[in-house]
Amino acid sequence: MTYCLAIRCDQGLVFASDSRTNAGVDHVGTYSKMFVFEYLDDRVVTLLSAGNLATTQQVVATLKRQAEDPQAVESLRTFKSIDEVAGYVGRVSRHVQSTDGAAAGGLVDTTSTFIVGGQIGLGRADIFLVYPEGNYISCSEQMPFLQIGEIKYGKPILDRNIHRAISLEDAARAALVSIDSTMRSNISVGPPVELLLYRTGDLQVFRHQTFDLDTPFYAAVKEEWQSALRRALDNLPRFDWE
Amino acid sequence: MTYCLAIRCDQGLVFASDSRTNAGVDHVGTYSKMFVFEYLDDRVVTLLSAGNLATTQQVVATLKRQAEDPQAVESLRTFKSIDEVAGYVGRVSRHVQSTDGAAAGGLVDTTSTFIVGGQIGLGRADIFLVYPEGNYISCSEQMPFLQIGEIKYGKPILDRNIHRAISLEDAARAALVSIDSTMRSNISVGPPVELLLYRTGDLQVFRHQTFDLDTPFYAAVKEEWQSALRRALDNLPRFDWE
Repeated sequence: MTYCLAIRCDQGLVFASDSRTNAGVDHVGTYSKMFVFEYLDDRVVTLLSAGNLATTQQVVATLKRQAEDPQAVESLRTFKSIDEVAGYVGRVSRHVQSTDGAAAGGLVDTTSTFIVGGQIGLGRADIFLVYPEGNYISCSEQMPFLQIGEIKYGKPILDRNIHRAISLEDAARAALVSIDSTMRSNISVGPPVELLLYRTGDLQVFRHQTFDLDTPFYAAVKEEWQSALRRALDNLPRFDWE
Repeated sequence: MTYCLAIRCDQGLVFASDSRTNAGVDHVGTYSKMFVFEYLDDRVVTLLSAGNLATTQQVVATLKRQAEDPQAVESLRTFKSIDEVAGYVGRVSRHVQSTDGAAAGGLVDTTSTFIVGGQIGLGRADIFLVYPEGNYISCSEQMPFLQIGEIKYGKPILDRNIHRAISLEDAARAALVSIDSTMRSNISVGPPVELLLYRTGDLQVFRHQTFDLDTPFYAAVKEEWQSALRRALDNLPRFDWE
């Protein structure tokens, strides 16, 4: 399994992903699920993936190949807005799945789900969730985040804290906590954790970091969160008989 | 859907449940999912249920009928330990499902899952999860809690805080937070919240309370937790560039 999320706040975009892949418990691997396409001063597109690893790799390979081909009819470089890119990723994904899925005869789940986000020129910095069917949705104004994979464990902390006006760094910390909680509760989600921050208007990546469990900053966040939760529990109101 | 949980700590047992039932989004109801069988100074058995409501009601009705029948070959009153009661609940549940499930011809999911817990005489105060197949498991010593229904949203807070030595009241507060987080993130889990505390050795219920969202104690827990999480997020370590 996998857990990836993206947040859209006024200051910019945050992307975060775990790195565990597994086909059953006997075949566990570590793969990055974050793919960054950065064309300085023109566009930044970030892709997060969940689902079939072969499909994901083939989709990403196709995106790269077409982006490097000046003759390509459509590519990550030809579109004028991120929602068009989301539609394009959906078409590529559907094409890969139709080929491999047909060959698998329905015996293997070849579907993948993506989060696509970024900014193109003066367009809006935005994030979209691309379904295996190729269609896509944006996040809502009220709850400006999207999740794919094992989304439930890490959702309460986002539901409670993410809003448009949150600072980019606070959103990034919430994303780390959301992934950390998921990793603690579900072994199919695992380190390292990748984190990317994009500031609206920059048209270049602001920060892209990878954290292992013992990376000092990540370890400090983890430990501080754990003890803050313990304090929070200690400080809850007493029952009337206590 | 549903979310119920039970915690076994050294001081006793905690049971908590939501009250929402739904068959699609058009048919939403409020039913208690906590059933208490209390025979003073002899035994206390608490049942939590998730799954098909008709199955649950028929199982509970059967348990009640047999418990009141002095001639019953087996009933909640005949067993000497809680694990035997778990096996008995499993048998009753399997029987109900086999009748109704066969009639439904596999078109309706008639399965139910239960948590059974309590204490009988000098036996151990314990909790068990009874699967639809009728078999059952106890909780582990390391993670002494069990969950049924929508278990993922509320699991991180339990994973991080529940241990054998936790006080009964702290365990109860963690259970409330676990259910509150789930209700916030998933509309298929809803109020009122029921909470039962049992102190090891008492052979009677210690506290059994029902909270609506605006019950002052529950509202205070909810609000304090929300602001503690916000503070916790505010106090996390800064990134090196901040």
